[in-house]
Amino acid sequence: MVFKRDTVFNPSEMVFKLTLSYVGTAYAGWQRQKNATAVQQVVEEALSELLGHEIRIQGASRTDAGVHARGQVVSFATDRDLDPVGTRRSLDSMTPPDLAVTAVTRAGDGFHARFSATARCYRYHVLDREAPDPLRRRHVWHIGEGPLDLPAMNRAAEAMVGEHDFASFCRKAEGKTTVRTVTAATWERAGDLAVFAIRATAFCHQMVRSIVAVCVAAGRGRLDPDVVPSILFARDRNAARGAAPPHGLVLWEVDYGPEDGQ
Amino acid sequence: MVFKRDTVFNPSEMVFKLTLSYVGTAYAGWQRQKNATAVQQVVEEALSELLGHEIRIQGASRTDAGVHARGQVVSFATDRDLDPVGTRRSLDSMTPPDLAVTAVTRAGDGFHARFSATARCYRYHVLDREAPDPLRRRHVWHIGEGPLDLPAMNRAAEAMVGEHDFASFCRKAEGKTTVRTVTAATWERAGDLAVFAIRATAFCHQMVRSIVAVCVAAGRGRLDPDVVPSILFARDRNAARGAAPPHGLVLWEVDYGPEDGQ
Repeated sequence: MVFKRDTVFNPSEMVFKLTLSYVGTAYAGWQRQKNATAVQQVVEEALSELLGHEIRIQGASRTDAGVHARGQVVSFATDRDLDPVGTRRSLDSMTPPDLAVTAVTRAGDGFHARFSATARCYRYHVLDREAPDPLRRRHVWHIGEGPLDLPAMNRAAEAMVGEHDFASFCRKAEGKTTVRTVTAATWERAGDLAVFAIRATAFCHQMVRSIVAVCVAAGRGRLDPDVVPSILFARDRNAARGAAPPHGLVLWEVDYGPEDGQ
Repeated sequence: MVFKRDTVFNPSEMVFKLTLSYVGTAYAGWQRQKNATAVQQVVEEALSELLGHEIRIQGASRTDAGVHARGQVVSFATDRDLDPVGTRRSLDSMTPPDLAVTAVTRAGDGFHARFSATARCYRYHVLDREAPDPLRRRHVWHIGEGPLDLPAMNRAAEAMVGEHDFASFCRKAEGKTTVRTVTAATWERAGDLAVFAIRATAFCHQMVRSIVAVCVAAGRGRLDPDVVPSILFARDRNAARGAAPPHGLVLWEVDYGPEDGQ
């Protein structure tokens, strides 16, 4: 039995699931890097210190530099029998205040944060009033030219729903598929914010921010939303509108099937 | 005619009203200080530079060090005929990103941000779940022991409504009255937050945070809310429960009468 794709199952090991929140501002993103601090590294170092042996973790979604997370999910295996409540508290005291472990649970032996995930949900926050808001400036993209046209943005977003090749909305990775299935993509008003919620089986690199950039162009009247299907069809990164800034984006939650007991 | 209490009216001057938002974290509070940066100083320096003469401003409410503002109101007089829209934009570009001028309007000659105000409203945010939230850590008081008893907190808060001597809830200022009129004080649940909204004609120093501390003690089961009227009646700072931390507090809005055209 193989409990994750890169490791042979060790019957004395148990799998644990962590849920994390973090402010992405100070991090070079999720994934370990050579010359910058990544979220993955901070969590692995805290876990390794706590458990007394080297821990490698799997993250459900690789957030980019500057992107926040409310519900990132992580799995790891250890032969130490952990108390979930005490582990959560210990990890919280060992990690910097811009990162919190919000839940620790024992998972099934086959659980893998990335490969067991059935969907990821991201949210993007746009403040579309003239004056900026210092209280939310690290968490919203401020567009000061006035109210965005939300119906136009929703027409642009609708074109994304379904299984498509999102090559126009992804940074290229050699030899990897850019076909993904988006199950929901809607803009809603929440006070003075325009909030985008998008759910997909998975996302490729920069996909959410590239979709947001196209929707916002439609909301500003700079792009006819009827053109969006042709941008998708072009399968060409240059056909889209770049990427919205990372600080408006939050990895909101990750879904797992009921068999993972989550 | 006297247009504000400390200055003789100059008929060539016009009065303007600014609305400000700021993150209090980096400031020593509203009021100018000798050895630390105050919000008042930042705004006065920007206005003086923009208008080419020294500007003194009046603030509606003197927020403490670390306290935030969503709707602080400021008045100042100048003989320069300002364009409100352009002035807002210019000030925004001259002030640091943790402070924003959200509105500039011409006010009546008699308008004074502090003395014309009819009420101030503050909000306080408590996160009462076990795990902290890094995304909101600069804006909420985290109480990790579990859900607070909101009905008990509302019973404690109710005791504040009306005209009372709030000496038990204020830092002493020699020879100044501590009688204030609270018109509303309620706790409400907003997702995983407990949010306190309090409105009064005016507040004395540390009054909101001292009231919050007593309410939270009641919500934790450490204080019988029926005792709160006797704390108020004691008119003794030691009878209360200290002060809640500043970073959960926001000066939400300031009310003016219709004659000020606001």
